[in-house]
Amino acid sequence: MNSLRLIALFAAIFLACSAQADEGMWTFDAFPTAKVKQVYGSAPDQAWLDHVRASAVRLTGGCSASVVSKDGLVFTNNHCVQACSQALSTDQNDYVKNGFLATDRSQERKCPGQQAEIVTSITDVTERVQTAIGSKTGEALVKARDAAIADIESQSCTDQAIERCQVVTLFGGGQYKLYRYRKYSDVRLVYAPEYQAAFFGGDPDNFNFPRYAIDGAFLRLYENNKPITAKDHLTWNPRPPKTGEVTYVVGNPGSTERLYTQAQLGFLRDVALPRTELLLSEWRGRLIGSMEGDAEKTRTGADQLFGVENSFKARYGQWQALLDPDFADKLAANEKELRVKISADPALKVKIGDPWAEIETAVQAYRSFYGSYTWLERRAGTGSELFDYARALVRAAQERTKPDAERLPEYTESRLPLLKKQITDERPIYPWLEEMDLAMWLSKTREHLTVDAPQVKRLLGKESPEELANRLVAGTKLADAAIRKALFEGGMTAIQASTDPLIQFVLKTDPEARALKERYRAEYDGPVTAAQSRLAQARFAIYGNDIYPDATFTLRISYGAVKGWTYQGTTIAPATVFGGYFERATGAQPFNLPPKLAAAEGKIDKSRVLDFVTTNDITGGNSGSPVIAADGSVIGAAFDGNIHSLGGAFGFDPVLNRTVVVSTGAIEEALTNIYPAPALLKELHAK
Amino acid sequence: MNSLRLIALFAAIFLACSAQADEGMWTFDAFPTAKVKQVYGSAPDQAWLDHVRASAVRLTGGCSASVVSKDGLVFTNNHCVQACSQALSTDQNDYVKNGFLATDRSQERKCPGQQAEIVTSITDVTERVQTAIGSKTGEALVKARDAAIADIESQSCTDQAIERCQVVTLFGGGQYKLYRYRKYSDVRLVYAPEYQAAFFGGDPDNFNFPRYAIDGAFLRLYENNKPITAKDHLTWNPRPPKTGEVTYVVGNPGSTERLYTQAQLGFLRDVALPRTELLLSEWRGRLIGSMEGDAEKTRTGADQLFGVENSFKARYGQWQALLDPDFADKLAANEKELRVKISADPALKVKIGDPWAEIETAVQAYRSFYGSYTWLERRAGTGSELFDYARALVRAAQERTKPDAERLPEYTESRLPLLKKQITDERPIYPWLEEMDLAMWLSKTREHLTVDAPQVKRLLGKESPEELANRLVAGTKLADAAIRKALFEGGMTAIQASTDPLIQFVLKTDPEARALKERYRAEYDGPVTAAQSRLAQARFAIYGNDIYPDATFTLRISYGAVKGWTYQGTTIAPATVFGGYFERATGAQPFNLPPKLAAAEGKIDKSRVLDFVTTNDITGGNSGSPVIAADGSVIGAAFDGNIHSLGGAFGFDPVLNRTVVVSTGAIEEALTNIYPAPALLKELHAK
Repeated sequence: MNSLRLIALFAAIFLACSAQADEGMWTFDAFPTAKVKQVYGSAPDQAWLDHVRASAVRLTGGCSASVVSKDGLVFTNNHCVQACSQALSTDQNDYVKNGFLATDRSQERKCPGQQAEIVTSITDVTERVQTAIGSKTGEALVKARDAAIADIESQSCTDQAIERCQVVTLFGGGQYKLYRYRKYSDVRLVYAPEYQAAFFGGDPDNFNFPRYAIDGAFLRLYENNKPITAKDHLTWNPRPPKTGEVTYVVGNPGSTERLYTQAQLGFLRDVALPRTELLLSEWRGRLIGSMEGDAEKTRTGADQLFGVENSFKARYGQWQALLDPDFADKLAANEKELRVKISADPALKVKIGDPWAEIETAVQAYRSFYGSYTWLERRAGTGSELFDYARALVRAAQERTKPDAERLPEYTESRLPLLKKQITDERPIYPWLEEMDLAMWLSKTREHLTVDAPQVKRLLGKESPEELANRLVAGTKLADAAIRKALFEGGMTAIQASTDPLIQFVLKTDPEARALKERYRAEYDGPVTAAQSRLAQARFAIYGNDIYPDATFTLRISYGAVKGWTYQGTTIAPATVFGGYFERATGAQPFNLPPKLAAAEGKIDKSRVLDFVTTNDITGGNSGSPVIAADGSVIGAAFDGNIHSLGGAFGFDPVLNRTVVVSTGAIEEALTNIYPAPALLKELHAK
Repeated sequence: MNSLRLIALFAAIFLACSAQADEGMWTFDAFPTAKVKQVYGSAPDQAWLDHVRASAVRLTGGCSASVVSKDGLVFTNNHCVQACSQALSTDQNDYVKNGFLATDRSQERKCPGQQAEIVTSITDVTERVQTAIGSKTGEALVKARDAAIADIESQSCTDQAIERCQVVTLFGGGQYKLYRYRKYSDVRLVYAPEYQAAFFGGDPDNFNFPRYAIDGAFLRLYENNKPITAKDHLTWNPRPPKTGEVTYVVGNPGSTERLYTQAQLGFLRDVALPRTELLLSEWRGRLIGSMEGDAEKTRTGADQLFGVENSFKARYGQWQALLDPDFADKLAANEKELRVKISADPALKVKIGDPWAEIETAVQAYRSFYGSYTWLERRAGTGSELFDYARALVRAAQERTKPDAERLPEYTESRLPLLKKQITDERPIYPWLEEMDLAMWLSKTREHLTVDAPQVKRLLGKESPEELANRLVAGTKLADAAIRKALFEGGMTAIQASTDPLIQFVLKTDPEARALKERYRAEYDGPVTAAQSRLAQARFAIYGNDIYPDATFTLRISYGAVKGWTYQGTTIAPATVFGGYFERATGAQPFNLPPKLAAAEGKIDKSRVLDFVTTNDITGGNSGSPVIAADGSVIGAAFDGNIHSLGGAFGFDPVLNRTVVVSTGAIEEALTNIYPAPALLKELHAK
């Protein structure tokens, strides 16, 4: 990523307050049909939308996907199954590096912690939640809201074994929608390519295009130990994309901040993003330093390093966008426009009040405890899975002693089944990595909160971060799934009786973290929800329905077209072909070709389309989203954005912002000539 | 460092455009006698100032010191001799960890690369340099200035074996002064305490107070293989400091940016500091990750890790200061005040023009090539000593073929003797560290300039950063001082004939780096020098001589008093005592006591003053500066600033900004009861 070039990236015109061409991550119950018709001549009908929605999959690990066969075959990105491949690997058998292929279904292997979810209905529950909130503020608001949500969720899903209910907060509190899901908690790995084929070019090519990466993989949904029979699935269409053709991306964008006020954006620019990036930089360095020259650490640390580098690069782009004067001016102009329009309507002005000032006050309050909250609660453990297990076990036990309506949202009845699965599924733990993550967390906490802070003294006692991390990791038994299961099921009695040092550590230190969480909810979440809810009312009053909510890791659809772009006089073609792999390869990591791909050079059709770009508006969480043609068939899976897309967290630029897609044709080429998988091809082609 | 607390640190009133109480790093030819008299009742006379100046030492490694015996004994900080202790150590004999004591003079050991310099005269050469510049701009200005400086320096010092001449640019170009030094290029280590005694509390306690650290060490100046006989030296005075007594700190503050314009500060805040901090974070992580669990890497990487962590913390404080709205407002108000005053004087206004706009233009230009310039020139090699040797050898050979007036400033005749010493002195090279530094540099360069940039392709060819770093380090012979000496003396013929891979790498890649250096000089240095020179004229016209120049790592004197401070209701006493070591120790690194200190607990006078704080205005480079009482005797050595002092880069806050000092009494206690050194004590006490 050229940090210099980024400086000037955001000069193009964009960011009207109402969405413009190709902008928007729309909910399925508010698809902008008229707008799409106006731009592209036609738009999907309700049947199309229903079918696509019923084929779209959310992967609870943070990705999107689609069902592509009646036997529950699921198409997603390789980087979405990478944690699974790594969990299934051993020092003798590295499925990340070598790829994975189940030659028959008996060889398909369960992905620990993974659940797949398909939306079955969306219901507006705004009135019910807002009535519960009434005129409450701060902590009372948050508690009333969460109680109402817990109530709706537990009443709405009666069969927790196969259903999940989730109330989603949209427009920061302007709308509440109940999403009902059919869930599948047995998800198995079917196929993954070699890592170097899927992520050729590594971090240097991440968020770049032209790109050469077969970042596609397959999972399968199981129930009762058998593949499911899917009522809906997308038609697999391995044809190449056509320049200019309309494309729909259906998936779960994770989060955007396009409706943030200037105060919130300033906080991100000056506090949250810089501090996060500093942590990620040191984290990355510690991983690289530890893995260097150690093959087993290189294998077992790879997925964490990928995640850290990916986060770093994405946030760096966001930060640079906020530091870009032109970009910042446009965001400021948007806010000003809304203020002016509200002021022009005296009745509206009275109704809306001054939400900006309220948010500014909340941001100032947040700033005063951001450090403690970040280090003791939000980032506690920084990546340590053992710590996450311990804290979830302790909190689940504590919360389950309370009525549903009074629990922290993560521990209400509707959330427990997935939590239990994530806690009790077996997966490998790498002690060196756990120790590194914990030591880093403790050391950074001490650095930022200072060595003499009482909360730091409680955390460390007389031990150094390294000694404490070593003692906790060496002593804990939480790497054993059976022990975690016993603790989860044993509740508070089991937790209090536990002599596990990590459980004891969390019992000792968690009250402070929980207090900070409550403080965040009372002093930031509550006031911001109240204010953003009124801002949403103002936007609806002024812009009508021509607006979409910020991303929430729930199902959205974006429309766009296959299209390259021109930047600083250079025009980028919309697609790459397989030949590019061989032209770009240097032999040196990360531009080395993996063995099977290299060996297949003679067989591969080098002119076949590999990756392509579209104008769809997406963000992190959309990875694996099907890219769907007008006829409803799938022609690719989104796996990245270009470098210009990173400012998309705050505003969409139709001129430069692009989605990067691996084509279905590329997957076919791989399954035919690189990783031959005739059974899989047959299944994909079945009518 | 509590990043939260820092947010609010800078609310106190300060930063008048003319210096206020205790503010200022004054040059010896412009000591503010009247002001000091006004505040403290009396002030040093010229004899006092001359004597002190003649006893003050600049250490070319980046520190300050003072002569404290007639036999050339030099008092400084332990962290100023740490690189020397490490260079003299082996895996069998770790002088950093265990300390060093020469029981007689035959055991005193030469510090590689170290030179000591004592100012003998200061001459104003402003008119001569400014006449040479005339009305030139940009590149022409820079070249005329540098030619004039080279000319003055080479004409003024006739005996390069014992003299050094340096023309210093003050007020960004408002003044030029010739500093003439008596130099000593044989500097030997006499005494250093255990690292854990000198840096107890490590990074967490760095920039903190109360503090417990005997950060004092001794060197000795030699000539012709014998200790020198010093004409001037400070009287060693091991008495405790008195609260409120006046103190003078005499040393070489490295750099401050108090005269920067808003455009320059904005660039620091949004570009330079963030990017530097990200690099330092990853660098720190890589070092920690590599050193973890490896005793020899832990030993050999220690000095680099200390430097990286120290830089990171200092710059973090600077960055947070610039992000603090109150602090930033005050800096903006200063600039505005100056603009208003200039505007009020029509004649002055015509003379001064609009230097702010010129600087803004230069900053914008700099921004456009900052990335390339940073990675290919300014930070090239990121810490690799072998790379530094190679580049200096190549450039010295190239530059020496030119007339003195046309050379890059670093390679003029007056600079070559020290350069030659630094290149040819023997010192250990740690290949793992060299490889790590080079791989990080190449990898970050690729990341920031992008993999497809032609300059990156030229750097890497078909190799990965790791492969290239490995090949260069494994193949180069530059770790051998004899080979470096031969190359230095052999000039261009030797360089061009060399098959050394690192020399060849630099020959191939350096033209691009040099071109960027020229660009920086032409597009930033030139215009800013012209503009700052007029700003300096304006300041002199308006504020008279009541202003001091930004720090330039040349000799300055600051005045102040022994004084604690009160922050957020907590009052910090001005001194700590030895007993604090034992109270604060936890046994866990970095709060563990080293063996000799721990063993001496029964003998140590726990009530004796260890460290103390004063209101003197100092910054990095002042480490080791003598803290001098009104009678001219030395009562301590400055070794740190408190956390509030970090915004001092941009403005001095008399309420909170403190210098942290190790007392001479503490050194006495150490030499008496912890590291018994009767001969040294006798020498210090000699009349």
